[in-house]
Amino acid sequence: MQNDHVPEAFFHRLAAAAAEAALPHFRQETAIANKQATGFDPVTAGDREAESAMRTLIAEHYPDHGIIGEEEGTTLADAMHLWVLDPIDGTRAFISGIPLWSTLIGLKRDGVPVAGMMSQPFIGERYYGDTHMAHYSGPGGPYPLKTRDCRTLADALICTTSPALFTDAERGRYERIEAEVRLARYGTDSYGYCRVAAGQMDAVIESGLQPYDIVALIPIVEGAGGVITSWTGGSASEGGQVLASANPHLHERFLSLLA
Amino acid sequence: MQNDHVPEAFFHRLAAAAAEAALPHFRQETAIANKQATGFDPVTAGDREAESAMRTLIAEHYPDHGIIGEEEGTTLADAMHLWVLDPIDGTRAFISGIPLWSTLIGLKRDGVPVAGMMSQPFIGERYYGDTHMAHYSGPGGPYPLKTRDCRTLADALICTTSPALFTDAERGRYERIEAEVRLARYGTDSYGYCRVAAGQMDAVIESGLQPYDIVALIPIVEGAGGVITSWTGGSASEGGQVLASANPHLHERFLSLLA
Repeated sequence: MQNDHVPEAFFHRLAAAAAEAALPHFRQETAIANKQATGFDPVTAGDREAESAMRTLIAEHYPDHGIIGEEEGTTLADAMHLWVLDPIDGTRAFISGIPLWSTLIGLKRDGVPVAGMMSQPFIGERYYGDTHMAHYSGPGGPYPLKTRDCRTLADALICTTSPALFTDAERGRYERIEAEVRLARYGTDSYGYCRVAAGQMDAVIESGLQPYDIVALIPIVEGAGGVITSWTGGSASEGGQVLASANPHLHERFLSLLA
Repeated sequence: MQNDHVPEAFFHRLAAAAAEAALPHFRQETAIANKQATGFDPVTAGDREAESAMRTLIAEHYPDHGIIGEEEGTTLADAMHLWVLDPIDGTRAFISGIPLWSTLIGLKRDGVPVAGMMSQPFIGERYYGDTHMAHYSGPGGPYPLKTRDCRTLADALICTTSPALFTDAERGRYERIEAEVRLARYGTDSYGYCRVAAGQMDAVIESGLQPYDIVALIPIVEGAGGVITSWTGGSASEGGQVLASANPHLHERFLSLLA
């Protein structure tokens, strides 16, 4: 399914508006609010301002589109076109001053992710895909994104954001995989999916995701030739347990190990 | 102790030479050699070329200085001034396409680290310190580096490169600390020390380090007002178990928990 409705240029406009709102708060002393009474869920002013900037642009250009955002909830949930926004994915990286956070901009049509952008504005990187193709712009670019052909666990580079995302049972399965692969990394957030799309890593294995953590990344991974599903092979677009792999062969191997 | 011998500008020349050698290999298909028969220790062509470029400059400008490098070993080990070089610290990040690797350039005088630079050339970030002061140049900069005054574990943001660096006993102690702090992150390599120096994180706790992993970072952390020692409070300059904290008060707390 193609994104035949919204030009890529509009994703760049949204990314630029979000960057303008978020970047002034990066590596500054910021007032961090706790969204939840329990646990640590930092939300910065940049987060709220970046989502608001994107919502304003969407309402102006596509008033009949719906929006799901991390900060402000859902508007027009039944619209044919639904934007799924995470103004600052990786807020923990953001408050630590580590530039692996990103703005995630996803577009669904009739419930299916059709286009998405990942933007890391401190470095100036953007990744865009529409399930058929994907490309990168930024330092060293632009160039098309293409996953690689790694077929064996022993050669695979994998990543996950944090072992803390897993339940005990999930963690056991992840650690068995980790013991067999060539290299496993933590702390990657959305960056890991872009590394799979770019052909430098082979899989991302995560759990506990929200839709806005993943919808934008699906058309990028798929557009680069990768496969992204839930751990049981269903759609990844609702979040939860997500597996992204460089190719179908490797995806089947990981699915069988996660079952 | 101050670096009264080598101007900061020379560190920038070394960083630029290393960047010119390393960057063309970042996110490219590279021939990765295995240095060790067991385990995974990737060494890229960029690693070797970057160290060679720095050695050439040092030999030309400071022929009586010694050099310890990750790739080519030690020359003039008994010299008063000794350079400690890691052309690509974080080679696992490097081969994964994640821009948290760095070139580390440390200078010791009479055995004591007196100046150091951390350079991340893909982003264009450089951190320099001489134990008395430290500063940052790059996107959003330049500005002086200053650690923050966090005094309690409950407020602290800490990081470590990977739990796999720890022995079982070390890991137990780390996990007890991790359970008490506000936020813990993995996958940071030298970037974590620079975040402590910049006042966005409060501690780095690591083990199994080599001297070239840490010597360059000591004058940066100290110059920004932080404290960096072994887990028993001795010098960190030989590597091994290293603790870097934002301030002396917090350092004492962590030392007592690691003892």
